[in-house]
Amino acid sequence: MRTAYREGFPIDAAAVEAALRDDAAHRIGAVFVVQTDTASGTTCDLAAIRAAIDAARHPALFVVDVVASLAAAPFAMDALGVDVAIGASQKGLMVHPGLAFVAANERALAFARANLTPRFYWDWERRRSDLSYRKFCGTPPLAHLAGLEAALGLIAAEGLAEVQARHARLARAVHAAATCWSATGALRLFTQVPEARSVSVTAIEVSPGIDPEALRSVARECFQVAIAGGLGPLHGRVFRIGHLGDMNEAMILGCLAGVEAAMQAQGIAFGRHGVDAAVRALVDGAG
Amino acid sequence: MRTAYREGFPIDAAAVEAALRDDAAHRIGAVFVVQTDTASGTTCDLAAIRAAIDAARHPALFVVDVVASLAAAPFAMDALGVDVAIGASQKGLMVHPGLAFVAANERALAFARANLTPRFYWDWERRRSDLSYRKFCGTPPLAHLAGLEAALGLIAAEGLAEVQARHARLARAVHAAATCWSATGALRLFTQVPEARSVSVTAIEVSPGIDPEALRSVARECFQVAIAGGLGPLHGRVFRIGHLGDMNEAMILGCLAGVEAAMQAQGIAFGRHGVDAAVRALVDGAG
Amino acid sequence: MRTAYREGFPIDAAAVEAALRDDAAHRIGAVFVVQTDTASGTTCDLAAIRAAIDAARHPALFVVDVVASLAAAPFAMDALGVDVAIGASQKGLMVHPGLAFVAANERALAFARANLTPRFYWDWERRRSDLSYRKFCGTPPLAHLAGLEAALGLIAAEGLAEVQARHARLARAVHAAATCWSATGALRLFTQVPEARSVSVTAIEVSPGIDPEALRSVARECFQVAIAGGLGPLHGRVFRIGHLGDMNEAMILGCLAGVEAAMQAQGIAFGRHGVDAAVRALVDGAG
Amino acid sequence: MRTAYREGFPIDAAAVEAALRDDAAHRIGAVFVVQTDTASGTTCDLAAIRAAIDAARHPALFVVDVVASLAAAPFAMDALGVDVAIGASQKGLMVHPGLAFVAANERALAFARANLTPRFYWDWERRRSDLSYRKFCGTPPLAHLAGLEAALGLIAAEGLAEVQARHARLARAVHAAATCWSATGALRLFTQVPEARSVSVTAIEVSPGIDPEALRSVARECFQVAIAGGLGPLHGRVFRIGHLGDMNEAMILGCLAGVEAAMQAQGIAFGRHGVDAAVRALVDGAG
Repeated sequence: MRTAYREGFPIDAAAVEAALRDDAAHRIGAVFVVQTDTASGTTCDLAAIRAAIDAARHPALFVVDVVASLAAAPFAMDALGVDVAIGASQKGLMVHPGLAFVAANERALAFARANLTPRFYWDWERRRSDLSYRKFCGTPPLAHLAGLEAALGLIAAEGLAEVQARHARLARAVHAAATCWSATGALRLFTQVPEARSVSVTAIEVSPGIDPEALRSVARECFQVAIAGGLGPLHGRVFRIGHLGDMNEAMILGCLAGVEAAMQAQGIAFGRHGVDAAVRALVDGAG
Repeated sequence: MRTAYREGFPIDAAAVEAALRDDAAHRIGAVFVVQTDTASGTTCDLAAIRAAIDAARHPALFVVDVVASLAAAPFAMDALGVDVAIGASQKGLMVHPGLAFVAANERALAFARANLTPRFYWDWERRRSDLSYRKFCGTPPLAHLAGLEAALGLIAAEGLAEVQARHARLARAVHAAATCWSATGALRLFTQVPEARSVSVTAIEVSPGIDPEALRSVARECFQVAIAGGLGPLHGRVFRIGHLGDMNEAMILGCLAGVEAAMQAQGIAFGRHGVDAAVRALVDGAG
Repeated sequence: MRTAYREGFPIDAAAVEAALRDDAAHRIGAVFVVQTDTASGTTCDLAAIRAAIDAARHPALFVVDVVASLAAAPFAMDALGVDVAIGASQKGLMVHPGLAFVAANERALAFARANLTPRFYWDWERRRSDLSYRKFCGTPPLAHLAGLEAALGLIAAEGLAEVQARHARLARAVHAAATCWSATGALRLFTQVPEARSVSVTAIEVSPGIDPEALRSVARECFQVAIAGGLGPLHGRVFRIGHLGDMNEAMILGCLAGVEAAMQAQGIAFGRHGVDAAVRALVDGAG
Repeated sequence: MRTAYREGFPIDAAAVEAALRDDAAHRIGAVFVVQTDTASGTTCDLAAIRAAIDAARHPALFVVDVVASLAAAPFAMDALGVDVAIGASQKGLMVHPGLAFVAANERALAFARANLTPRFYWDWERRRSDLSYRKFCGTPPLAHLAGLEAALGLIAAEGLAEVQARHARLARAVHAAATCWSATGALRLFTQVPEARSVSVTAIEVSPGIDPEALRSVARECFQVAIAGGLGPLHGRVFRIGHLGDMNEAMILGCLAGVEAAMQAQGIAFGRHGVDAAVRALVDGAG
């Protein structure tokens, strides 16, 4: 069977379609995809996946994890034909971690109603009832709700389209810097397809001999820049720059310059003038 | 009479000495100097001024304004023979504005006692009494005192010597960037004597035809970097970069890159790679 | 079969024992009790329940909900022979709601290991692993952890025994006031056994004709006192006074006086001088 | 000469008028009064003082200290013919201490302009200029201004008339309790004229043998109620209950009950049921 996922590339819609066509018995209940994979910084072409499901004439639910993209990247749930979306508070919404969101359309709700597995806390029907919070949910997480109200106020004040344009602009600056850094071959953008690079997080792969964990320590301790390490199989192979949420031009430029300083302090032979390229990208974006 | 102050240069100690020697009648009561002049970013050689007063055998008090340098730059009041020092909360001490400090030695206190001008709020003797706050000062500014306690805790945790080393390191990065920018002649460091450049603030003079106020607007609105304008006679001639207090490597690099972006957006022909020079200065400083 | 619960009384240990003796096949897996029932303000005699399980020689786990009593009332899990305890952040621990705690002893862990039902998030073994938070739990709820650290610091500074003594003292004041109010028969303490009255919350039952919801509105709107209503079957029959967590003498006296004001404004014929009785209880308790 | 001030009574307008009539040479520049004297809790009849100045046909400025009454009590500066009013941030305005206000009418400004005494910081003309904060005042006290904005927002949301009605209502409750306590003669309201009792603070005089400082310690340590001591000549003779600013029914009832508890713990033979009287006053006031 054709593999839908290859490192550095978005999910292969053709492989998804093939797998669904193979499932004549409709044993596959749902297609789960991540809009932005936080480990790789690779995004998924949701419209292509929807088209694949439709082309296969398969009834599977289309479930999308928008944890790392919610508010940062456009996501038109209904227009995209997404049945269930799952998000969280601590990324683009800028709230402290601890709150998750589920949006489900009528098709998904019908699917849930037909599911007879016992459940209480996770029961959508119970949750949607008017008296849910009094009869079932117990004490609501008030600090999260207050934080969410404040964060949505910030987003409304800036404008959702402007928030997403800012994320795109800052991501272009990061990608421009990383492209410069890649000139010598010592490191490269993990996601090979430019249009699949996330507006939220960028993973940069290092060549053997470069220790991304040591780089992270120097960046944090000497230059006050916190960058993330690789998760799971990518541990030791990549470092990641997050650029979502409460983030602006000066912050991302400081981050990129700090990463350059850390790479220089570590003796990594990276391609120079990445910050210049980022500055240029921002100047063009502001024009 | 020889002028003690010339733009871009520290106070001329020889001119101070000459003026004091001319004052045979000792009508000059005090020599007032600013350790760091916040408008020009120029510092004063306090030891040289003290030596000038001593050489002139003049009894004038030596009064130093340390508002913009307190905590950021070394200041050994007694060793420097300073009689009165005046500081404030809102710069190197990182507290909100509204609190000022006066330190006076025995000589200054004797001088104040001999002063018969009526005063109440500003009366040092009254203030120094045990019951000052109950009998005289009224309600203390509690939020400032709490802020000061927190700020002094931060400084103690980092170590005063480390705080001052950090200020020196960040200032070197700013001066390195500004020196690069100056290569084309479009702008220059206002303080011409390198050792007189402040660790707190750097003033950068622009050539005619460049509007520093327009540059500030672009920096703030497009790149989220707040830089200061020129004060009084320097208005329209300089812009200033503050680098004191709660400031670190990533923040100052973001600021410098943002200023580069703003200069580029404004079409200013500045010398390139200033951020690179700042990165190099920080890498060397961290070594 | 004998009922273990009767309104206004603690759980009947003899009824629990009888039910366990009847269960020769050991189909009962666990005895669940609430240390303090937040709806009724009635506490459970945990030692008596433990003794009942032992007397019946039944292997059921002893599971205790300490949500409304944790930190407020003594709870010696091991000495009481409790196998699992479940607590939460938002009551005696004074943290915002959203965090729950489970403590399980070796017996309970062995029971869980033998349970083959699939689970991920709720899997104790997975949770207890060293890498739990990195490999499994996702992003930790940082604001809750910071709040918990602060709250435990407050409790440690006051002393856990002192915290519990304070809860007992304030509860005595509330019970003294409510006993006074009961003199006319218009209302009464819901928990009839004095030693079963909770140190966390007190439910007060009103006679027919008195609307506790109207009383709550007047208390809140005219006298700035928030009292709780009845939950589930007790709705419209009781109002409740919470007296746990960040609570002191002045606060509880203000609450009791505000409730008296609201009862007076509503024309309820309550027994007078309840606040006086509470004051007396506090003066005696402070002696 | 007749004394304008007698303990427990408001300023005697007739004495003021007599003193001004005696001043044929107009050497008296200003009549200074305090609207609410924070030490005694006695208020001044500002209209009577204005009438006294007018009756004496004296040109003295009428200067009123509204520190302890601003926002809490009505003050119509122009209608009352007040020339200068002096307020502060930390009382009725609920902002942290450190900010003071001066309001001056045209007459007072002309008086100030005619004053040739050198001054800089306190110079009203300089302060009123458009560029005052840039050219003269230095860095503004930003945290105070932000606090003031928030506090004025609270006052506007509640309504100034409602804020003042609340102060009057809470003061009546305190006066009712203190009147009850006075029944045995052990203590009494310091201000003997009921209409001169302040809505902001109430001073209660104790009989010889009662130590108000010991009472304050017990109130604070055992019952979590902070009451103030006597200032200056009233030290050891009175204790004071503040009831202004961010204060509500439940808070003031808790305070009064806590004072009763402390008096009981100290064995003071006060008249009982003061809290009942306060509750009654609040119920009547809410009706």
